[in-house]
Amino acid sequence: MLQQPDATLYEGKAKILYATTDPKVVIQEFKDDLTAFNAQKKGTFFGKGAINCQISATLFRLLAEKGVPVHFRSLDSPRRMVIDRLEMVPLEVVVRNRVAGSLTKRLGIPEGEELSFPVIEWYYKRDDLGDPMVNRDHIRILKLASDAVLDEIRTLALRTNEILLPFYRERGLILVDMKLEFGWNSSGSLVLGDEIDGDTSRLWDAGTGEKLDKDRFRMDLGSVKEGYEKIYERVVGHAVES
Amino acid sequence: MLQQPDATLYEGKAKILYATTDPKVVIQEFKDDLTAFNAQKKGTFFGKGAINCQISATLFRLLAEKGVPVHFRSLDSPRRMVIDRLEMVPLEVVVRNRVAGSLTKRLGIPEGEELSFPVIEWYYKRDDLGDPMVNRDHIRILKLASDAVLDEIRTLALRTNEILLPFYRERGLILVDMKLEFGWNSSGSLVLGDEIDGDTSRLWDAGTGEKLDKDRFRMDLGSVKEGYEKIYERVVGHAVES
Repeated sequence: MLQQPDATLYEGKAKILYATTDPKVVIQEFKDDLTAFNAQKKGTFFGKGAINCQISATLFRLLAEKGVPVHFRSLDSPRRMVIDRLEMVPLEVVVRNRVAGSLTKRLGIPEGEELSFPVIEWYYKRDDLGDPMVNRDHIRILKLASDAVLDEIRTLALRTNEILLPFYRERGLILVDMKLEFGWNSSGSLVLGDEIDGDTSRLWDAGTGEKLDKDRFRMDLGSVKEGYEKIYERVVGHAVES
Repeated sequence: MLQQPDATLYEGKAKILYATTDPKVVIQEFKDDLTAFNAQKKGTFFGKGAINCQISATLFRLLAEKGVPVHFRSLDSPRRMVIDRLEMVPLEVVVRNRVAGSLTKRLGIPEGEELSFPVIEWYYKRDDLGDPMVNRDHIRILKLASDAVLDEIRTLALRTNEILLPFYRERGLILVDMKLEFGWNSSGSLVLGDEIDGDTSRLWDAGTGEKLDKDRFRMDLGSVKEGYEKIYERVVGHAVES
């Protein structure tokens, strides 16, 4: 099943996709780079790619076991995973359990407040536009996805949240919110893609309330690496090997 | 039916509401002030209040004739109308027929492009937050309106658009978009409130494409008064008396 990378298909801010000899399969490599505010702020730390790759692999395996269709196939190396090649839906789906980030300003509710149900938001994946929030009418106008596909994505996103919330809770982590992306694999199935880790999720220590995710980097809180390592330890189940 | 104003109930950026001796009825007075960008930009011109009041009165009468429930009862003076006292739904409903304003940046589509169907957007009426765009989940969290009420508002907003589009078209005006507000009157009916004019609608000359609405003020295009007067002439049916 493992393939050698032979060509860069796509290089993004935090990941590189390599083609393999199987057109249905690609390798997703996690970079050590960190970006925020639409790549206006940049950073890096050695090992971040491997940490996020293994957190994502653990969570994708868990989700697959629970019946959520995912792109993940196997780990290829500490920072590379073999995944289904997807045609992505150009939307980011944000699932929120507590108020943080842009939602504090949008609703005028203090950070940390628990939401009475998970809130879903759609963002149009367009770096040049700053990934704006969109509603269903906008999505229809842009023909990004049909209503039926949006309903399916919403259901999968909420199911993913239902699975991850208790998983994190049992490990002393609060899942504040997360960004998910979906795409179509070569069999025509809609599956969860991208990554799930401290780059794309807000995770707080349940005991201290300490932010452990990319907000440490965004907000210049320091100890960015240590935050990611704490997420790794709780999710993967052992300390990061150095 | 006419009442003397005896107390200011509310003073907004462009209108003042006065209580009357009938608790079910208020007087809505249109100010000559113009504001934009959440009142960071301010202006005024003599007669603007009367122009907008009479445009709104004409449009509310038309909508009422066509079966849309409205707050409007009668004109009290050139810049004052007698209306149902409403408990407002704290949402602005924007109906868009063409791309303009914030939608150009949100979707990356050039200004003026026709939308294949009218797009609805919801904004949370909160000056201190800058009236942010919200989706149905946000509205549910904030308990601003039930899903049934949102559906009813959406239907009324689209019906209003269906009535006004040909009305304007026959008068050489393109209705690019408009902001509507709804509220509950003393009988518990949901009715269209606020105002409908060049302050709250984008209206372009169908022949020349010239902007005639508040965008002249927002964008420093000059001849703001002349733009509003052109809208008045087309909608009310005769020139502004000076």
